[in-house]
Amino acid sequence: MTSPDPLPPRIVTACLLVIGNEVLSGRTRDANLQYLAQGLNEIGVRLTEARVIPDDEATIVATLNECRRRFDYVLTTGGIGPTHDDITAASVAKAFGVALRRHPLAEAWLRQHYRPEDINPERMKMADVPEGATLIENPVSKAPGFQIGNVIVLPGVPRIMQAMFEGYRHRLKGGAQVLSKAIAAYVPEGVIAKPLAELQARFRDVEIGSYPFVRDGRLGAALVLRTTDATRLTAAAEGLRAIIRGLGGEPVEDPPA
Amino acid sequence: MTSPDPLPPRIVTACLLVIGNEVLSGRTRDANLQYLAQGLNEIGVRLTEARVIPDDEATIVATLNECRRRFDYVLTTGGIGPTHDDITAASVAKAFGVALRRHPLAEAWLRQHYRPEDINPERMKMADVPEGATLIENPVSKAPGFQIGNVIVLPGVPRIMQAMFEGYRHRLKGGAQVLSKAIAAYVPEGVIAKPLAELQARFRDVEIGSYPFVRDGRLGAALVLRTTDATRLTAAAEGLRAIIRGLGGEPVEDPPA
Repeated sequence: MTSPDPLPPRIVTACLLVIGNEVLSGRTRDANLQYLAQGLNEIGVRLTEARVIPDDEATIVATLNECRRRFDYVLTTGGIGPTHDDITAASVAKAFGVALRRHPLAEAWLRQHYRPEDINPERMKMADVPEGATLIENPVSKAPGFQIGNVIVLPGVPRIMQAMFEGYRHRLKGGAQVLSKAIAAYVPEGVIAKPLAELQARFRDVEIGSYPFVRDGRLGAALVLRTTDATRLTAAAEGLRAIIRGLGGEPVEDPPA
Repeated sequence: MTSPDPLPPRIVTACLLVIGNEVLSGRTRDANLQYLAQGLNEIGVRLTEARVIPDDEATIVATLNECRRRFDYVLTTGGIGPTHDDITAASVAKAFGVALRRHPLAEAWLRQHYRPEDINPERMKMADVPEGATLIENPVSKAPGFQIGNVIVLPGVPRIMQAMFEGYRHRLKGGAQVLSKAIAAYVPEGVIAKPLAELQARFRDVEIGSYPFVRDGRLGAALVLRTTDATRLTAAAEGLRAIIRGLGGEPVEDPPA
């Protein structure tokens, strides 16, 4: 069988900017990349790069302006709360060269959410978005995210970020969804490497990844096939099972990551 | 009290490149960033940026060449195993414009590790490093990492990466170590925001971060102070405790992240 090398389907790309000193210092471990990677793929958007950057205006502006030109979408998480270190909205406005303006609808949402005596300038700051931005509703704590151009700004708290992303993602325009199949084998990577490379040569349109693991003291590898073409995925998986059996192993379907 | 705004101590920066389709697809969650952020800080190296990029030669070469000029150190994790998708060493060689060569010592380590009948070209590929690179010993599975210029290449498997980093990190030249102090309060961010901004204005040499949380159904914020100056850290922490008490709260020292 030879690889048909078809024209690849339109790939819609995204870059995630995790904005937060707390992730770079190692104090907290980011949980948003994995969630967004999976959630984006479900609507046909491929996370192609992610960056973790500090809460620093110059860095945010420069990174945003580079990435919004290179990727179809840029998503950001973090830095849209009420405290002095929440500078994402102002930085995005600066990157786009527009003013930061109080959005009337965002203001209304916040005024409805807080008791009158709890309203203060710091909380109302969360209604300030770059001019021309579209609000992203926050069903949990009301302070909105927003989209401007191809940049989608979300909060860092995972539970709130997820609720907002779920409510908004239907508005993104996706391309072909990546289908994947994972098969594990208790065969060392160094043993399966050669036939795996041959399989990859036969299926150039299928991305084949190999990830070693040790489970219950036994050495193995998780082999992951990824492609937008269901037929090719099935064929490559069949080829992979044959390789594993040929090495005396037993294919383990859909192993845990 | 006014901020002395001293000349900042020399900051040694690092950028981490997590190389791996499996992280970008959301199949696995990176564990190396957090470990390296903390481990680097202990030797006075500050993780200033991190990027997750795919197993793609052009991307690795371009990213590496950008980042090795911008940061004091670049660390990479992933892509140095025996399979076809392990292309980090070859990509680093290309970025530096040098040949990929079999390293005699690395070869000796691997030949000692494997039984003669288990040696094959795929496994020996793990002895190939860019010309001029210094090996980084692997006490677990022998396949080495390496350093070339300011670029340090480590594997992706956390247990092995950690063992190699621990054995090698004394060779990095660090600057001032960032000291940090975290204090939590069951006070909403929107309430503490204003006095916190005032504290930040008084302590411009202390980075003050605010991270909201919900614990046992109660809303609070973890406030994190970071600086290289122990005296200023103590003073800022005292100021922070006073703010929390002034709002009717009780400072919670060193809360879990």
